[in-house]
Amino acid sequence: MCVTDHNPNPANQHPSANGNGTRRSSVSPDTVLNLEQGDPAVFEPYWKKMGDKCTMVISGSQWMSYISDFNNTCWFLEPELEGAVRRLHRTVGNAVVDDDRHIVVGTGSTQLYQAALYALTSPVDLSRSVSCLPLLTTRHIQMRRTISVQGFTDGQYTTITAPVDQEIMYFTFSKSTGHAGSRIGWAIVKDKEIAIKMSKFVELSSLGVSKDSQQRAAKIMGVICDGYQNCKAKNSELFFEHCQKLMAQRWERLREVVERNEFFSLPKYPKEYCLFSGEFNEPHPAFAWLKCEEDIDLEKFLRGCIKVQGRSGRKFGTDQKYVRISMLSKDEVFDQFLERLPTVKAISNGY
Amino acid sequence: MCVTDHNPNPANQHPSANGNGTRRSSVSPDTVLNLEQGDPAVFEPYWKKMGDKCTMVISGSQWMSYISDFNNTCWFLEPELEGAVRRLHRTVGNAVVDDDRHIVVGTGSTQLYQAALYALTSPVDLSRSVSCLPLLTTRHIQMRRTISVQGFTDGQYTTITAPVDQEIMYFTFSKSTGHAGSRIGWAIVKDKEIAIKMSKFVELSSLGVSKDSQQRAAKIMGVICDGYQNCKAKNSELFFEHCQKLMAQRWERLREVVERNEFFSLPKYPKEYCLFSGEFNEPHPAFAWLKCEEDIDLEKFLRGCIKVQGRSGRKFGTDQKYVRISMLSKDEVFDQFLERLPTVKAISNGY
Repeated sequence: MCVTDHNPNPANQHPSANGNGTRRSSVSPDTVLNLEQGDPAVFEPYWKKMGDKCTMVISGSQWMSYISDFNNTCWFLEPELEGAVRRLHRTVGNAVVDDDRHIVVGTGSTQLYQAALYALTSPVDLSRSVSCLPLLTTRHIQMRRTISVQGFTDGQYTTITAPVDQEIMYFTFSKSTGHAGSRIGWAIVKDKEIAIKMSKFVELSSLGVSKDSQQRAAKIMGVICDGYQNCKAKNSELFFEHCQKLMAQRWERLREVVERNEFFSLPKYPKEYCLFSGEFNEPHPAFAWLKCEEDIDLEKFLRGCIKVQGRSGRKFGTDQKYVRISMLSKDEVFDQFLERLPTVKAISNGY
Repeated sequence: MCVTDHNPNPANQHPSANGNGTRRSSVSPDTVLNLEQGDPAVFEPYWKKMGDKCTMVISGSQWMSYISDFNNTCWFLEPELEGAVRRLHRTVGNAVVDDDRHIVVGTGSTQLYQAALYALTSPVDLSRSVSCLPLLTTRHIQMRRTISVQGFTDGQYTTITAPVDQEIMYFTFSKSTGHAGSRIGWAIVKDKEIAIKMSKFVELSSLGVSKDSQQRAAKIMGVICDGYQNCKAKNSELFFEHCQKLMAQRWERLREVVERNEFFSLPKYPKEYCLFSGEFNEPHPAFAWLKCEEDIDLEKFLRGCIKVQGRSGRKFGTDQKYVRISMLSKDEVFDQFLERLPTVKAISNGY
C-alpha cells in the first residue's frame, strides 16, 4: 500500500495530458506534474526580464527562400546562425570551432542524431575509391567514429574542463537557452564528407530547417555573447552565470529533500575545475536520476502516489527502480514536486 | 553542335551554386538560372507591398515550450495555426475541414509525406484487435488508402472544382504563400489513428515543428483571409487573385516563346469552372514540363547551351527529353529565361 499525506487518487487522465508548460499557469495539488520531457520552462523568467533585447521583428517578405547559401557545406544554414554558433562556442570555450570545422543545422538535435547515424553508416562513394583498400579503411574509420559522436549541453549544467574536440559534436538550442519550441540544433563536424552527408539527411527529411527559428536563435545567442563582452554587465545578468546559480539552487533543494527520505537517493558528482567560471564546480545536470532503495517500479509508484510523471530507467536500458526527473520545469512545478516528495511515507511491494 | 546567340560556354561552377534566391539580386547574362527547385521567389514583391500587415514581433520569452497542447491529436500543433488552417480552407473552399478532421503539422510537406507513409505501413495495434479479421480488414483499407493520399497546392495554380475530401491531404506553406524558408506543411486527416501515427512520426523525426514558424504562418494566413472578408479590399490586393493573374501572365509569355520555337512544346490544360474565382480558368501549375521534339538529354542541353538548370524527366521516371522548369523564380530570372530560350537555334545529336 502506498501511504501519502497527499491526495492518493491515481490520475485518470493521461499522465502527460498537461505539459505544465507555458500556456497553462495554474499548478494545484491535484495537477499531474510532468517531469518527463525536460521542457526547459525554468529559463523563461530570465528571458522575460531581458525585455526587448531579444525581440525579433520579421517582416512578411523576409526569409522566404529555401536556400541560404549553396556554397556552404550545409546549403540551408543561415550565415547569421553559423556566425552566432562559432561566437557562442568561442565565448563559452566548450568546443573547438576552428574555421575548418563544418556546422550543420537540424530541426532539433533529434534530427541531427539521426543525420549522424545516416552519415556514419551510409556507403562510401565507390566511384571515388580506386581500390577496395581505401574504401575499407574509410569504413573502418567511420565505424570508430561512432564512438566519438557526443551530444553536449552548455555551461549551466556541466563543468567545462577543456574545449571538446570530437569528430561530431551536437548541441541543442532547447537545452542551451531554453527555446525548445524553436527546434534548433547544430552539429560541429570535422570531416567535410560527413558534414555533406548529414546535410543531405536533413534535406531529405525536411528540406532544411526553419529560417525564422535560425534567425531567432542567432539573435538570442548574440545577446548572450554581447553580455560577456560588455564590461558593465552584472554577473547576475549574464545568462550562464544566472542559470548555473539557478540549477545549483534546485539541486541543493532536491538533495536536501532526498537526504531526509530513506527511500530515495541521488547520484553524487565530483567537483571539477571549470575553465569558464574559473571555479571548482559540481555538475548540475538537466535531469536527476532518482533511485528507490526498494525494488519497485518507481515511475508507476510516483505517478500513482504523488502524481509525478518521470521517465522509467527501463526506457534507458537500466532498472525500473530508477526514474529520470526533469530539473528544468517552471518554478511552481518544481516547488510542488519538492512538497510532494516527502509525503511518501511507506512503499509496499504492491507497486 | 549547339548554336546559340548566347555565350555558349558551359558553366564551370556547380549549376546550382547560386540559388537565384532573395539574398543575391544581380542576374547577368552569365548567371546560371536555377529553375530546378521551385523556390517561390515570385511572391516576395507582394509581401513587400503588404508592408507591416504581416510583420511578426516575437519576444525573447515566447513559444519556448516543446508542447502546444497535449489534448490535441498532434500535441505540437499551435492552436493558432490550427485555427488559421481551417479558416484558410473554408475561405478558399479547396478542401473539406469539418471539425472531425485532424490537422497534423510538419516541417514542410516533405516530412508529412514520410509521416503518411509511416502511418499507412506501420502495423495495426494487435492488442486492439480481438481476432485476425478486423486486423486484416484494417490493413486492407489502409493499403487502399495509400491511393487516396494526395498533395495539393492552392488556388493560384489550379482550378477549384469542388472541396476535396480525401483520407489524407497535405498542403505546403511554401507553395501556398511563398514562405518556403519557414518549412511549414500541414495534413488534413480523416482517421484519428492515422493522424496519431503521423504525429508520432514527426515527434520521432524532429520532436515537433518550429513554433516561431507555425505562428508566422498563422499570422500570414490570417492576413490573407482578412482580405477576403474585407469588403473594401481591391481585387488586385487579394492574395490569390494577385497570384492567379501573375501565374497566368507568366504562362502566357512562356507559351508565346515556346510556340515560336520548333524544338519545344508544352502540355495543354483544359479550362474548368473554378468555384473560388467563379470563372472558367486554365490551371497555371508551379512547374512547366518543357518537352523537346528531338531525342536529346534536355536537362544537359539547356544547362550547356543557355545556362538554364531544370530537372530532368528521368528523375520523375519519364523521358530525358522532358525538363521540369520552375515557374516561381523571381522576375529577373524568369525574364532572363524567356530571353535565352529563343536563342537556341539548332540541336545536334551530340547532346
